[in-house]
Amino acid sequence: MRYEEMMIEGRNAVTEAFRSGKTIDKIYILRGCQDGPINTIVREANKRDTIINYVAKERLDQMSETGKHQGVIALLAAYEYAEVSDILENARNKGEAPFIIILDEIEDPHNLGAILRTANLSGAHGIIIPKRRACGLTSVVAKTSAGAINYTPVAKVTNIAKTIEELKKEGMWFVCADMDGESMYNLDLTGPIGLVMGNEGKGVAKNVKEKCDFVATIPMKGDIDSLNVSVATGILAYEIVRQRIVKSL
Amino acid sequence: MRYEEMMIEGRNAVTEAFRSGKTIDKIYILRGCQDGPINTIVREANKRDTIINYVAKERLDQMSETGKHQGVIALLAAYEYAEVSDILENARNKGEAPFIIILDEIEDPHNLGAILRTANLSGAHGIIIPKRRACGLTSVVAKTSAGAINYTPVAKVTNIAKTIEELKKEGMWFVCADMDGESMYNLDLTGPIGLVMGNEGKGVAKNVKEKCDFVATIPMKGDIDSLNVSVATGILAYEIVRQRIVKSL
Repeated sequence: MRYEEMMIEGRNAVTEAFRSGKTIDKIYILRGCQDGPINTIVREANKRDTIINYVAKERLDQMSETGKHQGVIALLAAYEYAEVSDILENARNKGEAPFIIILDEIEDPHNLGAILRTANLSGAHGIIIPKRRACGLTSVVAKTSAGAINYTPVAKVTNIAKTIEELKKEGMWFVCADMDGESMYNLDLTGPIGLVMGNEGKGVAKNVKEKCDFVATIPMKGDIDSLNVSVATGILAYEIVRQRIVKSL
Repeated sequence: MRYEEMMIEGRNAVTEAFRSGKTIDKIYILRGCQDGPINTIVREANKRDTIINYVAKERLDQMSETGKHQGVIALLAAYEYAEVSDILENARNKGEAPFIIILDEIEDPHNLGAILRTANLSGAHGIIIPKRRACGLTSVVAKTSAGAINYTPVAKVTNIAKTIEELKKEGMWFVCADMDGESMYNLDLTGPIGLVMGNEGKGVAKNVKEKCDFVATIPMKGDIDSLNVSVATGILAYEIVRQRIVKSL
């Protein structure tokens, strides 16, 4: 496990970090700011002996990575990456068939943040990303994840294709999203499943696609080429949710 | 049909706009800037009698939406808003029951752009947005829509609640997304439908929600409060697509 210093910005994100029991090293709050949400944060910080620094707006603006600090920035002893085995254990602990989202080189932190929210709420047990050429767990991801980063484990692996092979030995099977597959409504997406989503521009890499058992296509009737990748992930994740609900009835 | 100003920023984008024959209303150029690409733009502007304003850097920084103006910003007589009647006609021309996405005060241009892609590919006949307190068709929206802005009509109305009332008289019915509704899987989402999505933070306004026939909830099993709004729109739009497919079988 690796630790890295990590910034959280904005009122909801900081409040959520406290609520989920994260260790916050230090908080920077806009001097003179005393409204409800800020007072709640100060109270939580005092309860846990977190150091509070009251600073000028310029200082916050300068520190901010998102440009939207809303008067508060917190420093965490930061986002811990999980191991793939932690994700499988997460599923086992819940007594559920594993549901893992595998992101093959997602580059945009807003997409990764939105997908973390989707993973958390659709009941996925974790996300796997590659070590290279992909967005990691930055503060923009933390903010756009609306707190999901605190709950849904993210594992970083060296080689996505190899990880898929290993997980197949554990009884999982894999579906990747691409244009040339079978309509997702015609596929059986129940059981221990890995949903593989490709890069924003290039889609799923050939060597990764070859490892997948099925290719699922979202039916499209419009004029343009593709959905936003975080939207497409949401649609496919919820088709998995729907099929699991139908099967359990 | 109404026209509204649209901003293009950066040397390549402005040069490209001239090259593709777009009608540029006005150009703002950094005062004193005389390098090759800027001179080319000035020459093109003079050829077409485009008004040129030479301004200070602060002015350009203030106008810029992308933060990357490179010394030149052009205003286009750009993305045309449609009328609500155009959207209904779009459905009629395709021989389909109307499917309209209504966005009650979406503020983030990335969300509006992603929703435009979803609307285009899920077969929605158009999007309705309010005139006030909402993101319009800006250059960021155009870029993130990946071309969908050229195909899917967007109408701007003064009062969303009133527009819903009028469309009900045309036989449409409305479902809004909120936490306290019926699971979307248990609702009949076929027929002439309007899907109403709320603001990123506040959700659907009370007076708009009251006009809706049903409240649809996306089943959520995680720890956080909500999905990203463009992801939620995608999931609901595709539940409508799925039900329409099932019904047509």
